[in-house]
Amino acid sequence: MALVVQKYGGTSVGNPERIKNVARRIIETQQAGHQVVTVVSAMSGVTDGLIKLAREVSHAPTEREMDVLLATGEQTTIALTAMAINAMGHKAVSLTGAQAGIVTDGFHTKAKIANITPKQLKQHLDDGCICIVAGFQGQTAEGKITTLGRGGSDLTAIAIASAIKADICQIYTDVDGVYTCDPRVVPDARKIEALSYDEMLEMASSGSKVMQSRSVEFAKKFGVVFEVRSSFNNNPGTIVKEETKGMEDVVVRGVSIERNQAKVTVLNVPDQPGIASKIFNTIAAANLTIDVIVQNISTAGTTDISFTLNKDDLPKAQAALDPVVREIGGGLSAQDGIAKLSVVGIGMRSHSGVAAKMFEALSRGGINIRMISTSEIKIAVIIDEAKINDAAKLAHEAFGLGA
Amino acid sequence: MALVVQKYGGTSVGNPERIKNVARRIIETQQAGHQVVTVVSAMSGVTDGLIKLAREVSHAPTEREMDVLLATGEQTTIALTAMAINAMGHKAVSLTGAQAGIVTDGFHTKAKIANITPKQLKQHLDDGCICIVAGFQGQTAEGKITTLGRGGSDLTAIAIASAIKADICQIYTDVDGVYTCDPRVVPDARKIEALSYDEMLEMASSGSKVMQSRSVEFAKKFGVVFEVRSSFNNNPGTIVKEETKGMEDVVVRGVSIERNQAKVTVLNVPDQPGIASKIFNTIAAANLTIDVIVQNISTAGTTDISFTLNKDDLPKAQAALDPVVREIGGGLSAQDGIAKLSVVGIGMRSHSGVAAKMFEALSRGGINIRMISTSEIKIAVIIDEAKINDAAKLAHEAFGLGA
Repeated sequence: MALVVQKYGGTSVGNPERIKNVARRIIETQQAGHQVVTVVSAMSGVTDGLIKLAREVSHAPTEREMDVLLATGEQTTIALTAMAINAMGHKAVSLTGAQAGIVTDGFHTKAKIANITPKQLKQHLDDGCICIVAGFQGQTAEGKITTLGRGGSDLTAIAIASAIKADICQIYTDVDGVYTCDPRVVPDARKIEALSYDEMLEMASSGSKVMQSRSVEFAKKFGVVFEVRSSFNNNPGTIVKEETKGMEDVVVRGVSIERNQAKVTVLNVPDQPGIASKIFNTIAAANLTIDVIVQNISTAGTTDISFTLNKDDLPKAQAALDPVVREIGGGLSAQDGIAKLSVVGIGMRSHSGVAAKMFEALSRGGINIRMISTSEIKIAVIIDEAKINDAAKLAHEAFGLGA
Repeated sequence: MALVVQKYGGTSVGNPERIKNVARRIIETQQAGHQVVTVVSAMSGVTDGLIKLAREVSHAPTEREMDVLLATGEQTTIALTAMAINAMGHKAVSLTGAQAGIVTDGFHTKAKIANITPKQLKQHLDDGCICIVAGFQGQTAEGKITTLGRGGSDLTAIAIASAIKADICQIYTDVDGVYTCDPRVVPDARKIEALSYDEMLEMASSGSKVMQSRSVEFAKKFGVVFEVRSSFNNNPGTIVKEETKGMEDVVVRGVSIERNQAKVTVLNVPDQPGIASKIFNTIAAANLTIDVIVQNISTAGTTDISFTLNKDDLPKAQAALDPVVREIGGGLSAQDGIAKLSVVGIGMRSHSGVAAKMFEALSRGGINIRMISTSEIKIAVIIDEAKINDAAKLAHEAFGLGA
């Protein structure tokens, strides 16, 4: 008998029929001899409907009240899912985030989990009940309702799995698992059987948006083994866990694509302390998320600093930087229509020549590299968006990732 | 400065515009120099929508989960109302039933309030906040979500008013107050300025469905003065409070109408102990609510027992009683198309001749009385439904209740 935590997202519980389908899957898991805790999200569309209501009463809804409002979405799903299981003749109880013992800090709409006291949860499991827990929400030690921000339900599942020492945490989604590349781009992309937390993190931050990084980081920190799998079939998914010896044998685990990027370069920056911090403080104050940052060595006392960001944020970034650039006496160049291609794998730490192989592959396709950025287990290049599919196929093939 | 508890029902908060309107009224009350706690119901239609969802996943939804589901309705309203007040530049916080400290027993869908520990509520009031509390809901001492059943939001308001020793509890509704009779039936009906709890109870149980009896009983038990008034204007409403000396000067306070009644008579019942209890246990087991019960003296060792109930319940009552009647060897007669007319007033305790005056008035209109039932402060008659409007006018006039 294993202790299993499952998580189903908004699409999987999007209407009463789908909720009944999820109920059947949960029951099957229990009948296979396991104890089951299932975390569910709000039914798809519900959260957007609530946000629309809030905007009708307030242009800038208070974050405290936004949390109270949005928490009703998941509360609705847990009640309906538990009812559906009960109607099929099995014992199930619903638990809100607060009832499941999820205690957070007080940062409304983006709270962090402080600790979990799963007393009620354990008691219900001991009573032979299936527990249906509301994802995305918690409460502060003082009893205020909070929500965890984007990807919050995954985080709830992984945090609960950690707190109750579950054997496995299954993240059900609308894809079969993590692939070596997006199968719509690279037809012979394969599902990855297992990968390390670090690889998953790099894949996620490189555009494979199966999960938010924060959930993977939490899993890594507390050693929670989880599996990404489909809620529409019974295929085994992708296991994400601590790095194991054999994992290093594969040099590159996968190829990630991120489209809709833009590049900003601050030109002729005086090569002196404090300038970079001035630029990026300005960006942070404008609440913009940036990705790759590149600075090369300086020539003639000045240098150029480039960074990428989502192309929708480009006008905001230009407006924010304009006074700073004028103050330091530099220039500003911006360009959209670019994309990021990354190859990821913990094996590349111990294998040289990965970068060379990648650049060679792109060169064969006549693809010009505009920026390069690397981490210990990732090489990312910025190229023209028009070439991204070709580039992905070439890299995928060069590292022998196909079926 | 007074401490005011207000309650707005589902129609008053039925859409974002109306919520903003309620927000303005709440702010006006605070700006008049008062501390304000406002209890709100689910937006009209929301609860029905949730019940419909539940029926789509289960033919007989578990009551525990029904409570978790329905509680989201009021939680949505409190968040939106607090947001609306915040958007108008005033301090307001929302509180769920649990956060407001409403502790109930564990009878899901019809829980009773066990006690209230309004610690959070008082703290927010001391901080100069308006508190918006979810009506209709509470939680058990073990932290399970419960709902209070029909009329639950009124009960929440009155219970909180009692717990925080409020100066007044205002029940906002879609009528101006309690009238001497339904103005659609008796055009010169007047709004009653003040009446006693007992009169309000008899009026409520006699068809003036401004409030459920249980809320009035709670107010009586704990001496909570409340006012029934309209959320669509600023007219003073009707005050309900302990009986005062002057109140007895009015013999009859009002005339109540209850339509859609049916009458069941069990004929030739053996006049021996245990028979009545057998009949009414059967009715209770079928979960039917009955109103007036009449039994006259027995003749020739048998008697007839009659009772009234809602006409929709008649088939169920007949089916339930059929085997009992056969067992005791009696007969069963049933009739719908009847209605109940009641005159209510604590003054009738000290004035004789009230019944005579009422019967005389009905007789003048050629109205046949089928059953009579009285309490210390009420005389009720069962008559043909077709005559109920005429009867109400005659009684209203006979007791000089008109404007």
